[in-house]
Amino acid sequence: MTGILYGVGLGPGAPDLITLRAARLIEAARVVAYPSLAGGASFARAIAADLIPATAREIVMDVPMTPAREPAQAAYDAGAAQIATALDAGDDVVCLCEGDPFFYGSFMYLFARLSDRYKVEVVPGVTSVTACAARAGRPLVARNERLTVLPGPLPEAELRARIESAESLAIMKVGRHLPKIRAVLDDLGLTQRATYIERATLSEEVILPLAQAPDNAPYFSMILLTKGSDPWL
Amino acid sequence: MTGILYGVGLGPGAPDLITLRAARLIEAARVVAYPSLAGGASFARAIAADLIPATAREIVMDVPMTPAREPAQAAYDAGAAQIATALDAGDDVVCLCEGDPFFYGSFMYLFARLSDRYKVEVVPGVTSVTACAARAGRPLVARNERLTVLPGPLPEAELRARIESAESLAIMKVGRHLPKIRAVLDDLGLTQRATYIERATLSEEVILPLAQAPDNAPYFSMILLTKGSDPWL
Repeated sequence: MTGILYGVGLGPGAPDLITLRAARLIEAARVVAYPSLAGGASFARAIAADLIPATAREIVMDVPMTPAREPAQAAYDAGAAQIATALDAGDDVVCLCEGDPFFYGSFMYLFARLSDRYKVEVVPGVTSVTACAARAGRPLVARNERLTVLPGPLPEAELRARIESAESLAIMKVGRHLPKIRAVLDDLGLTQRATYIERATLSEEVILPLAQAPDNAPYFSMILLTKGSDPWL
Repeated sequence: MTGILYGVGLGPGAPDLITLRAARLIEAARVVAYPSLAGGASFARAIAADLIPATAREIVMDVPMTPAREPAQAAYDAGAAQIATALDAGDDVVCLCEGDPFFYGSFMYLFARLSDRYKVEVVPGVTSVTACAARAGRPLVARNERLTVLPGPLPEAELRARIESAESLAIMKVGRHLPKIRAVLDDLGLTQRATYIERATLSEEVILPLAQAPDNAPYFSMILLTKGSDPWL
């Protein structure tokens, strides 16, 4: 019997925003797998640390942060091969993912490599979008409102066009793109409506009006913006 | 001391997709509040049923499903008044919300009525969007992709324009709007790329290629669609 690959969403960072299902899978795991970025500590592992059994074997994928895709692809190739070996030996593998596995999650790269040969179950997690909204006290969408999620690295012209046509808006992966995004929002007269959130739900969390946000934002930062009036009254 | 109002996301329906934080709050609750739609059973209460203490007092908001907003507003006014009485008496109130409280959640109506006077904490939950993606085995967005969330009741012309400009797409609240949505997708040549999901994560779950979906979809149904190639390989 080959094992099952579980892609487990851990939520935005606070360990108690893990779901009951994810917690039970991690607590029972014989093999866990997770990425660590550019040789640093693994955020995914940190979120789940208190649940990982001391006896579990850990498969670490060291993913380099380079503009070229090939080095990261090679890291996922190597990780997928190690995971496949464990599955072939009959062990289930619990792959730890920040947020939700299918929402900008690194698990998608393992899913693409392994789901045609192995049984895969994905456990959805709380995304940073709703976690940021909760922490900022900003409802996202009600009734027939539309939500648009944009990555901050998009080129300025595309970002501008997408922001103009959006209604409720979450801009992810703000990081070093903050000055570009803020310039677009300033120009559209939307800065006063926007909230900046970094490291939502962690002790280092920062929530500020966008106008007061620092230019050197970390990768895990977001801007939330609603254009309409408050239709949920 | 007045109490704290907790808006607690319960996730898409499977009780073990509740977060640890939400579970602890519900298990310790002296007062819980939740909506029931049009006199029927409360989906929110059903998700959390095994966690609600037998001793907890329950505030039920019976929300009528009418095109006019006033009857629903009156129900939330009455619920907010009952919740305020409990908070004034020093009790915390745990308000149960399907999915995430700020993502098309009924809690937004209570938040609008009570957050200026009481301390409110929102506990984010797993949304139906990522739950449907997980169950359908359909990654949503990777790298610099955009996600658009549209409500099915939008007028056909707007729906069409928004679908045309979207990249990865979730259409919520499909229900009786399914024939209209399918006609638009057929016309745009996108039906073969679309998956239909109803009651994701529940035992009654249905997952079908959109072309095979029934015309009489329930309210809790969704269409997922990605237009690009698979960029996560």
